[in-house]
Amino acid sequence: MLVEACLLIIPAIVGLIYHEQESFRAFLISACAAAAAGGALILIKSEGSNVYAREGFAIVGLSWIMLSLFGCLPFVISRQIPNFVDAFFETVSGFTTTGSSILTDIEVLDKSILFWRSFTHWVGGMGVLVFSMIIIPLGGKRSMHLLRAESPGPSSGKLVPKMRNTAQILYGIYIALSVILLIFLLAGGMSLFDSLINVFGTAGTGGFSNYGASIAYFDSEYVDVVIGIFMILFGVNFNLYFLIFLKRGKVALRSEELHWYLGIIAFAVITIAININSIYGSVHQSLRHSFFQVASVITTTGFATMDFDLWPQYSRHLLVMLMFIGACAGSTGGGLKVSRVILLLRTVKRGMRRMIHSKSVEKVRFEGHMIEEETINTCLVYLAIYCLTGVISVVLLSLNNFTFETNVTAVISCMNNIGPGLGMVGPTGNFAAFSAFSKLLLSFDMLAGRLEFLPILLLFSSTTWKR
Amino acid sequence: MLVEACLLIIPAIVGLIYHEQESFRAFLISACAAAAAGGALILIKSEGSNVYAREGFAIVGLSWIMLSLFGCLPFVISRQIPNFVDAFFETVSGFTTTGSSILTDIEVLDKSILFWRSFTHWVGGMGVLVFSMIIIPLGGKRSMHLLRAESPGPSSGKLVPKMRNTAQILYGIYIALSVILLIFLLAGGMSLFDSLINVFGTAGTGGFSNYGASIAYFDSEYVDVVIGIFMILFGVNFNLYFLIFLKRGKVALRSEELHWYLGIIAFAVITIAININSIYGSVHQSLRHSFFQVASVITTTGFATMDFDLWPQYSRHLLVMLMFIGACAGSTGGGLKVSRVILLLRTVKRGMRRMIHSKSVEKVRFEGHMIEEETINTCLVYLAIYCLTGVISVVLLSLNNFTFETNVTAVISCMNNIGPGLGMVGPTGNFAAFSAFSKLLLSFDMLAGRLEFLPILLLFSSTTWKR
Repeated sequence: MLVEACLLIIPAIVGLIYHEQESFRAFLISACAAAAAGGALILIKSEGSNVYAREGFAIVGLSWIMLSLFGCLPFVISRQIPNFVDAFFETVSGFTTTGSSILTDIEVLDKSILFWRSFTHWVGGMGVLVFSMIIIPLGGKRSMHLLRAESPGPSSGKLVPKMRNTAQILYGIYIALSVILLIFLLAGGMSLFDSLINVFGTAGTGGFSNYGASIAYFDSEYVDVVIGIFMILFGVNFNLYFLIFLKRGKVALRSEELHWYLGIIAFAVITIAININSIYGSVHQSLRHSFFQVASVITTTGFATMDFDLWPQYSRHLLVMLMFIGACAGSTGGGLKVSRVILLLRTVKRGMRRMIHSKSVEKVRFEGHMIEEETINTCLVYLAIYCLTGVISVVLLSLNNFTFETNVTAVISCMNNIGPGLGMVGPTGNFAAFSAFSKLLLSFDMLAGRLEFLPILLLFSSTTWKR
Repeated sequence: MLVEACLLIIPAIVGLIYHEQESFRAFLISACAAAAAGGALILIKSEGSNVYAREGFAIVGLSWIMLSLFGCLPFVISRQIPNFVDAFFETVSGFTTTGSSILTDIEVLDKSILFWRSFTHWVGGMGVLVFSMIIIPLGGKRSMHLLRAESPGPSSGKLVPKMRNTAQILYGIYIALSVILLIFLLAGGMSLFDSLINVFGTAGTGGFSNYGASIAYFDSEYVDVVIGIFMILFGVNFNLYFLIFLKRGKVALRSEELHWYLGIIAFAVITIAININSIYGSVHQSLRHSFFQVASVITTTGFATMDFDLWPQYSRHLLVMLMFIGACAGSTGGGLKVSRVILLLRTVKRGMRRMIHSKSVEKVRFEGHMIEEETINTCLVYLAIYCLTGVISVVLLSLNNFTFETNVTAVISCMNNIGPGLGMVGPTGNFAAFSAFSKLLLSFDMLAGRLEFLPILLLFSSTTWKR
């Protein structure tokens, strides 16, 4: 809360620069509210000092909800998004780096408000990195039962023993990549404000834009390529940058997850380019738009240079499949994660081989290691939770009476933290028409997907609240 | 093959009765072809007499494909379905008790052809019972690795030790239920031919009708209720009828799977009736149509009294969810099966509890038994195979350039052996417009779903064919 209070000062300064009185005031009030809440929480004395897995994950879940509740105050107070549920949805979408929006006209909003909206992506991206690289590996073998598949790669904990140190290096890499992207965008002639917005959206793999047309607004191949490449870079497991930082770049390049990630991207870019070639006429343009949209979707960013909802069905369907896969584990991207998909594929393959050679004791291998059975089991249970949450969400969403395509892709898009889906929630659409209940449900899906389900689901379990 | 040759004589007799020369000839030729193939196979001497799990499952998979290849001959030879791929699709749909059709005008076909088309449902239903109740439990602990979740209820093997005996009793129950249904339909004034067609479709939970309007053709509440109840009866685990047969009816009624099955039906019937009440005006009519469609979809039959594709979105979406769930294990119905869904739900719940109480060694319980970890793992791997096959099928189907809704529900409908989906493949639509490749893909999905994936997937694995 206290950190958020500090963060809220930054858009307030933006408000001052652009002479946006109302919004400036809203940010100051929100910062005070967050500071007051943070101060009050410090005064509460806890009875025990032991934090077990249950408390740890509940704290993570509650923190993200609290951050979103206070983070949406500026939207409501400034009356730029007067409806509270809408503002909450937009803020959750920001912090979870989803990028789904309820706004029908983005460009009428104050600059400071748009700045804060995108800034939440950047802050959320940092939070995700710390969550997946430090908090999850902290749990013991049993306590992180459901989440062990998170970083099956080289564990950061082993490389640098001290947690604080790890966090600092992660932040350093994240900030360094962001600054390099900023320089590239400024060099391309983009204004500082627009550049910052796009850095926030790209680094957090969020996808909020300050223009209704998203990246298509710039109509620049240079911008497309730069943002496209950086989206892919932010979708890489940060462990690999860590390794490069430790001068072990060769090990990083041998990463199986990286090879699959790039392989899937290459396959999707080429087949979609072939599929849309008749629309754009030239191979060059087809590849350009295919590359950008594939990079945007697999990294779960959600920027768009073209309305892929209007593309032929193969392209639309393949993009939805990429939404499931998502980026690498240990990145700012969402989705099932490439490493989890590889583990699932290998587990299926082994299951079949076990059937044929009935006494097989074969192990699943990944990144040169034998994977423990518990990790595999965790990964399978994760898939079950994922399917269950998805199917129930789609049925509940159907009460709005929108189409099957809209409901299914809205849930996929939110649960995997992408942003746009197909149909009504396509790249040029938005989530405004959903009921308040549906917006809260989709906010739940965004949070659940972002925090790998457990921290959020625990909050809704009665046993969590028992002493 | 020899049995199929005998079965082909029955529609030949129907052809004689209705003076359908061409079709009569086609059935005789097909019967001779099947007999010749069967005879030739007997002459081939096998090198070893040991049949291991691998051979066993490969035999099952190959048998279903062979039965379908010879079973589609009458359609092709009589030129009633001249295209071979279409005829193959229709026959696979018949034997797998799916009920998806490529026919655009059913009523112009010869009666004997329509008889054979529906008769494959009835034969397929018997095959499924024997497959799931006798062949799967035969495998050892390891060999049936992927399929152990099939009958977690009281094992039929324990009740009556001899396999042949078990099969005879199963056939007896199946035939007895079919005859009772036939009497009910005849008593309602339906013609013998129509009654037989509907008995075949209901008993096999298949859903082929001899009228384009399906059950709506009869426009009779009596018919709706009778077929609705019998669909639900054929979706019950046949172990329970077995128990009743052994005068242990009280044990049967305590079945957890039965309670869930009936509970899910009740929930769906009531909420859909509320949802469609504004269309039909009266509670009575809403309940009537809701009951029939829910019974038809959850048992994976696919008959229709109303075009549920035109219903409000909640009803459409909930019906799709019921398609995933399917009927009880050990019935003629398809889908994931109610018992598997219960196991998955409990595994997810335990996974969360393990997280909270980190030293928990809690077991998953079902039907009063502790479920072995291997069974749970099998069930989870099954879900992974299911999701994987589904997603890849949808992407491949998208090459036809039909809508997302059509592709997704076509795959769900075929893989779970239902019949109709939504959109183009809705209750009044058909599968005619798909490409030949797509029809073969959907045939693969029908067979894979029907035989619980392994026997069919094994046929496509190179290791299966190594000595």
